[in-house]
Amino acid sequence: MIIVGFDPGLATLGYGVIKKDNRHKPEMIDYGIISTPKEENLAVRLALLEKGIKQVIDKFKPDEIAMEELFFAKNVKTAIAVAHARGVLLLTANKECGRIFEYTPLQIKQALTGYGRADKKQIQAMVKSFLGLKSIPRPDDAADALAVALCHAQTNKLGGLFKI
Amino acid sequence: MIIVGFDPGLATLGYGVIKKDNRHKPEMIDYGIISTPKEENLAVRLALLEKGIKQVIDKFKPDEIAMEELFFAKNVKTAIAVAHARGVLLLTANKECGRIFEYTPLQIKQALTGYGRADKKQIQAMVKSFLGLKSIPRPDDAADALAVALCHAQTNKLGGLFKI
Repeated sequence: MIIVGFDPGLATLGYGVIKKDNRHKPEMIDYGIISTPKEENLAVRLALLEKGIKQVIDKFKPDEIAMEELFFAKNVKTAIAVAHARGVLLLTANKECGRIFEYTPLQIKQALTGYGRADKKQIQAMVKSFLGLKSIPRPDDAADALAVALCHAQTNKLGGLFKI
Repeated sequence: MIIVGFDPGLATLGYGVIKKDNRHKPEMIDYGIISTPKEENLAVRLALLEKGIKQVIDKFKPDEIAMEELFFAKNVKTAIAVAHARGVLLLTANKECGRIFEYTPLQIKQALTGYGRADKKQIQAMVKSFLGLKSIPRPDDAADALAVALCHAQTNKLGGLFKI
């Protein structure tokens, strides 16, 4: 089964592709980012995201897609920008794949480290370890996307959690 | 020229359609809402909004589309829901029409009442008056959509303000 994890963002949207079956450890297939230029207007940036998301889904043909739920309290302006991007991501992912799963930050931390208060570096170290990588994937957006894909792979093993 | 104003929202997305030329007062063509059921998941609701937005644009074939910029401080959860919807609105409007104009709440208030601190009721009374309607359009989302369309019609008269 191919799982694509997405980490939504307006300037940088991360994706991580893994393959998993019931007998082997999850395997990293690819990861990367879709980025949009700050100087473009919002509608054009959203169109660029849609195009990039479609290309990723078209290339890797995921069976299932995983993404993080959006919880924000710090910066409303950033939250609004990410939510615009996330609206386009959900719309496009649902159209192109149909099987979308959402996880809270807590679920991702617990699935990867067994510990709900793990920090970003611990999560990234577990992504590297789980996937047998030589280094931590860069940028952070791609590592975060792999983390949510791995969370889905773990959770799925336990019977699946259809959140959305 | 046909102008469609949109008032983004996840549960209720308002639209207002007006016709204007340089010799006559703006004329109301139609208004209404696209609504999505709360019990559906977010991806399905966004797909319903996309479908409804496409239908409105396809039916009225606007030359230009106007919508309000998103400023939120009160409730981050609501802001995030509206921004998901607004991402889909911008993406779809840009694909189907291409000429999108954004206005701040202040610009809308000033265009309709000449007064930046006008309240919702004053704006709605001006919408009714400008368009020669017998009553204030309902629900509020539709009245707000007509308000942003009228704001665009007014601003356009003064030379146009391409905001996005």
